[in-house]
Amino acid sequence: MPALPDLPEATVARLPEYLRALHNLAENNHETVSSDWLATAAGVNSAKLRKDLSHLGSYGTRGVGYDVALLIEQIEYVLGLTHRRSVALVGVGNLGHALAGYDGFATRGFRIAALFDADPVRVGEEINGLVVRHVDELSRVASEESIAIGVIATPAAAAQRVADLLVAGGVTSILNFAPCVLAVPDGVDVRKVDLAIELQILSFHEHRKASLTALPAAGESPLTALSGGLAATDPQEAIGT
Amino acid sequence: MPALPDLPEATVARLPEYLRALHNLAENNHETVSSDWLATAAGVNSAKLRKDLSHLGSYGTRGVGYDVALLIEQIEYVLGLTHRRSVALVGVGNLGHALAGYDGFATRGFRIAALFDADPVRVGEEINGLVVRHVDELSRVASEESIAIGVIATPAAAAQRVADLLVAGGVTSILNFAPCVLAVPDGVDVRKVDLAIELQILSFHEHRKASLTALPAAGESPLTALSGGLAATDPQEAIGT
Repeated sequence: MPALPDLPEATVARLPEYLRALHNLAENNHETVSSDWLATAAGVNSAKLRKDLSHLGSYGTRGVGYDVALLIEQIEYVLGLTHRRSVALVGVGNLGHALAGYDGFATRGFRIAALFDADPVRVGEEINGLVVRHVDELSRVASEESIAIGVIATPAAAAQRVADLLVAGGVTSILNFAPCVLAVPDGVDVRKVDLAIELQILSFHEHRKASLTALPAAGESPLTALSGGLAATDPQEAIGT
Repeated sequence: MPALPDLPEATVARLPEYLRALHNLAENNHETVSSDWLATAAGVNSAKLRKDLSHLGSYGTRGVGYDVALLIEQIEYVLGLTHRRSVALVGVGNLGHALAGYDGFATRGFRIAALFDADPVRVGEEINGLVVRHVDELSRVASEESIAIGVIATPAAAAQRVADLLVAGGVTSILNFAPCVLAVPDGVDVRKVDLAIELQILSFHEHRKASLTALPAAGESPLTALSGGLAATDPQEAIGT
């Protein structure tokens, strides 16, 4: 297997969007796509898209664009989607049920191989053909089933223990929905989805939009109005979405 | 109201983690915190934390660290959490139920003010004291209730229409869980949480970890093994989590 290039994290996050748009094109029998069209479909500007794809050695053809089937193959290879990956889902409350039923996983080669919970009421429940097991079995099953990715949908108080059990079972990638920071060894990747944080980021932008339309009070410097002060700084990067 | 500084997006994303750790400290009667301790609790390195907080004009005291109560006040102000923000949740399937019941919202001043769905079976259901309304009422209710943030937890096919209705009702911030890209006017911020994309990002890292432990086949250049080629490039940034 050739060594894969190290890609900027932001590029890695955009590749799945390109892939989704490309699959839609393929389903509608398009054989080529321009960078402008693909960029719009993925919600990015086309210069960024061309830069991203150049990392994969994909440059398109002037006047024609990219070959859809080839680009799909290249992106799926780089994202490792040509290998089916087994996923363990831990925590089968509302969020766990939502994740267990999420269509988008299976179409990208992710197979939810096992479900776990600590609540005896939930253990034994059947969801989408899988029977929920007790979390005490997690390390053993993760190891036996060669589970690559663990998804944590438990309360915060349980999450670190679950992470420890996943790591003990050989899992090296974790998707964490619990509102807490996990401690993991080097070599274990963690992605975090935190709903409260997403709302707070939106709140920041709302607050800033409101402040930009307001005037400072007469005689008051905008910079000292708060105890401790908020110093204006040079923006390091534009606020993007 | 003083004009708020424009902060790098990455800093904005870390402020809520600092806030969570600070609230834990305050609940345990700690009055000061060192940058090292706070950085560890938030899962970042302390130089990055100090840089982030300097954007707010917070520099700490040598040998002592930061004043917990003051830092909470500054971060809550910048994030706009001193204003209670009304949230509309659209789509009350499993994911919507999980979001509606998520404790972390209320503690940060976010009030789920209204629930909507297009399914007549779900309309009229009571969740956490709120009655689910039909999505046809969305624009009117969003306007009447001064809803600031819309959360879209619908299937992809419905999401753009819901976004249009939210925008028509005066909503300027959207948190999108549907696996699609939304088109919105300038001035409307969209944050996207896409579960399939998160798994694909993890898959990329898994694939790369596997490839780094494998050797190229004898006689084969790693760079040409794939049709179209994968060109090695200079990493622009380290893969972080």
